[in-house]
Amino acid sequence: MSKKIAIVGTGLIGRSWSIVFARAGFEVWLWDPVEGAVSTAIKLIKEGLPSLAEENLLNGCSVEQVFGRVHASDSLEDALDGADHLQENAPERVEIKKELYQQIDRLVGPQTVMASSTSGIVASHFTENIQSRERCLVAHPINPPHLVPLVELVPAPWTAARVLEKTSALMRQVNQAPIQLNREIKGFVANRLQGALLAEAFRLVEDGICSARDIDTSIAEGLGLRWSFMGPFETIDLNSPTGIRGYCENFGPLYYELAQEQADPRVWGEALLSKVEQERREDLAADKLLDRQHWRNQRLALLMSAKKEGEERLGK
Amino acid sequence: MSKKIAIVGTGLIGRSWSIVFARAGFEVWLWDPVEGAVSTAIKLIKEGLPSLAEENLLNGCSVEQVFGRVHASDSLEDALDGADHLQENAPERVEIKKELYQQIDRLVGPQTVMASSTSGIVASHFTENIQSRERCLVAHPINPPHLVPLVELVPAPWTAARVLEKTSALMRQVNQAPIQLNREIKGFVANRLQGALLAEAFRLVEDGICSARDIDTSIAEGLGLRWSFMGPFETIDLNSPTGIRGYCENFGPLYYELAQEQADPRVWGEALLSKVEQERREDLAADKLLDRQHWRNQRLALLMSAKKEGEERLGK
Repeated sequence: MSKKIAIVGTGLIGRSWSIVFARAGFEVWLWDPVEGAVSTAIKLIKEGLPSLAEENLLNGCSVEQVFGRVHASDSLEDALDGADHLQENAPERVEIKKELYQQIDRLVGPQTVMASSTSGIVASHFTENIQSRERCLVAHPINPPHLVPLVELVPAPWTAARVLEKTSALMRQVNQAPIQLNREIKGFVANRLQGALLAEAFRLVEDGICSARDIDTSIAEGLGLRWSFMGPFETIDLNSPTGIRGYCENFGPLYYELAQEQADPRVWGEALLSKVEQERREDLAADKLLDRQHWRNQRLALLMSAKKEGEERLGK
Repeated sequence: MSKKIAIVGTGLIGRSWSIVFARAGFEVWLWDPVEGAVSTAIKLIKEGLPSLAEENLLNGCSVEQVFGRVHASDSLEDALDGADHLQENAPERVEIKKELYQQIDRLVGPQTVMASSTSGIVASHFTENIQSRERCLVAHPINPPHLVPLVELVPAPWTAARVLEKTSALMRQVNQAPIQLNREIKGFVANRLQGALLAEAFRLVEDGICSARDIDTSIAEGLGLRWSFMGPFETIDLNSPTGIRGYCENFGPLYYELAQEQADPRVWGEALLSKVEQERREDLAADKLLDRQHWRNQRLALLMSAKKEGEERLGK
């Protein structure tokens, strides 16, 4: 089996994917059409590795080992040559992706799977007219993938089943957590779930029930704790002596009433957005957003490290 | 200031509240109308403390110190006598609560705040006709409160502002995370957010988009990680260089489209429930539910311990 991964598009997501594959032992070849982007990316990857090593998040490898697997490609052709898997992280514009996949289609070998990191464009919108389309799919990560394992695998109607299976196996091999959608759907799964939560969060603030700050507390000091190691179905399954059936028998009618109250799609208008933004800016000045993103990633790294320990001690 | 807390109703939630208050230094007096319930509760509290001490979750106190603050009351009158705060954890039936609050009303001193742990019954439904109603409110915890800090404070229309403030201060003092609702609403905040997420989760399974297991993965290996230390508004605030405003400008239209697709309240019918239940029982046999609840609490304890460490190292 080939051990080569091509990373096309070397911004934030491409760099993070490079770490995911390199720490798992793959040789990673980076390419980006923007002059100088690859060397910048490689420099930033190098700078980020030591702190991951400290949190034991390099899969038992040294910084040098991981960095030794990260390479600059001179061309798209070089990056693709002999690659087992291509992870594409181009800008989120369908025209750009269409043109890129035309290029890739002309250069790609017969064994390469082509996975797009897109969060919002289904693969059928940019792979319809290429020869190799049955080897294309979406593999949507959560930012940043080297700290958040979830990957949503979304096939186009023409994606071959074996391509899905192969990508799923690869993602598990590199310690990500792939889920498999049966067909294309707007927002995929994670953002649909996030959207449902956000819609109610904005609704509660707009209706004057509580502050945006208190909504954040209700998740970060409440529901979000369990959700960091078990999903919503397991959560309710454990909240009744008779499992999810008993839970739904008890609380299904309440949740149905709530769903009826929540069935009014609302535009997040200027007055509402201003109110929430004001609360956020009181808690975090605009010029501290970047620092706070860095803090988030450090907290995520600590959490993943603690989670691994928890799984080792108590089971998954 | 009085340092006495009355715990009325000593099941799972009452026991957990006892630990919350006792580890914070309060003298806790338990009462339950069921014969033998208090002594059983005190025995179970004693058994649970050593593992909390191991995870450094007794607020720096020893097992003996905490247990020494937990007392059995001979009567409701004794429990209430001189209490600063009553935490009521009676069964979730409005008739039971109505009758109990009538009793309490006759016995309670003028300084005691009466807080109900109810998850589903607003305080106006069981306190309307009592003298002391302006000192009554809901203080809804997430199970179990000694491991999950969130407390939802929900006033009845007649709850005095100073009672809300006093309860909020008390909850902070005992290291819980209170949020304050401005008025009564069905499901309060946390279960409304959970309900919105569950509705979409069941919808995705019913529509054949993915398995229930993959929904759980999408949260437990994805969105739930960040949500364990920051809420949904801060999450999106950090997902754009221009904060929540830029995020909503970019993604608001997508989320509005999703909200329109999600505006079909659905009953969780038998076929759907059977499908989800079958997946759950494949992953966890019915006779393992109790063990798994224990595992969940152990994982929560580890998480809270790691979270505290994360906050100390990196800030909250």
